[in-house]
Amino acid sequence: MAQHVAGPEIERLIQLLARLPGLGPRSARRAALHLIKKRETLLNPLSDAMRIANERIVVCSSCGNVDTADPCTICRDAKRDPSILVVVEDVSDLWALERSGAVNAKYHVLGGVLSPLDGVRPEHLNLERLVARVSEPGVTEVILALNATVDGQTTAHYITELLAHLPIKVTKLAHGVPVGGELDYLDEGTLSAAIRQRTSF
Amino acid sequence: MAQHVAGPEIERLIQLLARLPGLGPRSARRAALHLIKKRETLLNPLSDAMRIANERIVVCSSCGNVDTADPCTICRDAKRDPSILVVVEDVSDLWALERSGAVNAKYHVLGGVLSPLDGVRPEHLNLERLVARVSEPGVTEVILALNATVDGQTTAHYITELLAHLPIKVTKLAHGVPVGGELDYLDEGTLSAAIRQRTSF
Repeated sequence: MAQHVAGPEIERLIQLLARLPGLGPRSARRAALHLIKKRETLLNPLSDAMRIANERIVVCSSCGNVDTADPCTICRDAKRDPSILVVVEDVSDLWALERSGAVNAKYHVLGGVLSPLDGVRPEHLNLERLVARVSEPGVTEVILALNATVDGQTTAHYITELLAHLPIKVTKLAHGVPVGGELDYLDEGTLSAAIRQRTSF
Repeated sequence: MAQHVAGPEIERLIQLLARLPGLGPRSARRAALHLIKKRETLLNPLSDAMRIANERIVVCSSCGNVDTADPCTICRDAKRDPSILVVVEDVSDLWALERSGAVNAKYHVLGGVLSPLDGVRPEHLNLERLVARVSEPGVTEVILALNATVDGQTTAHYITELLAHLPIKVTKLAHGVPVGGELDYLDEGTLSAAIRQRTSF
């Protein structure tokens, strides 16, 4: 066993690294060795970055984004269209949309999607705050930018019902052929959606 | 861009995580978010484990293993056969052999293999110390437990030449069918070696 050979300090480092998404036991061992070999250039800077992240990063009480300020940079950004709220499952989806530059609006991070199997119910999501924000004057459209999975679409339907009494437009992302995608590799559901939602040239 | 949204602290964390083997830019973003969400149970313990590893872990001046003591636990272990030295490329290979429990001897970690393409020459490896250790009285066998790659086997040949003048036995790992392996999925080289090195039932 590695712990008998290398001591409890390395074993503890490996165990914690193995809990990061994307790292299994084998890659955690490789990562631990890599860190030990690159102390000055990686281990110490990463340890510092983690300490600083813990000290400074907060969850935005308005939208659920993570940032060093509350309200977050996006919520305070006067150049963004405040009439559109983009609802996402997680901060990673917010980052993905920001990288795409597709929309210049405000966000609302749910912190998950409804999932009966995983025991995620409406009260576990950031929904109360969503209704409060949408109820304020000024918001005219809610874009449901949720994953095209069963849980994502169930959540989209639930939110649509939840906001049905409000005088706003609720929209969702288009389904279709990914840019660069080959038809031969796409499933029937995507192809059907792409045909149904075809646009004029 | 994530840095404009989430601030330089998160961006720095993502950049450093992306330098771990096994994590790319996307999985580094997921890992950073996971860390921020699990502060008490993961981010802080991992940061502490890294600080402790940096303070306590040293490279064994005798064999090149990493441990909290120098000489390392293996070099100081009186229950191990000191007449056999197992030469490995990296500490991860030492750990793999220890997990297997296949050998109860001492190790020598090269810290790499010869690789003309990557500019790794003999003087970059822990070879001088290997010759010194093998030259001491008591060592009777050197097992070259190097990867069955071109670079690994080149290094094995180089070390065999290097130790040729010493009155010791130099051996290497057997080639053959992996335990649980199916013949149909093995390459011709492995099958040929398994036939050539066949053993009596």
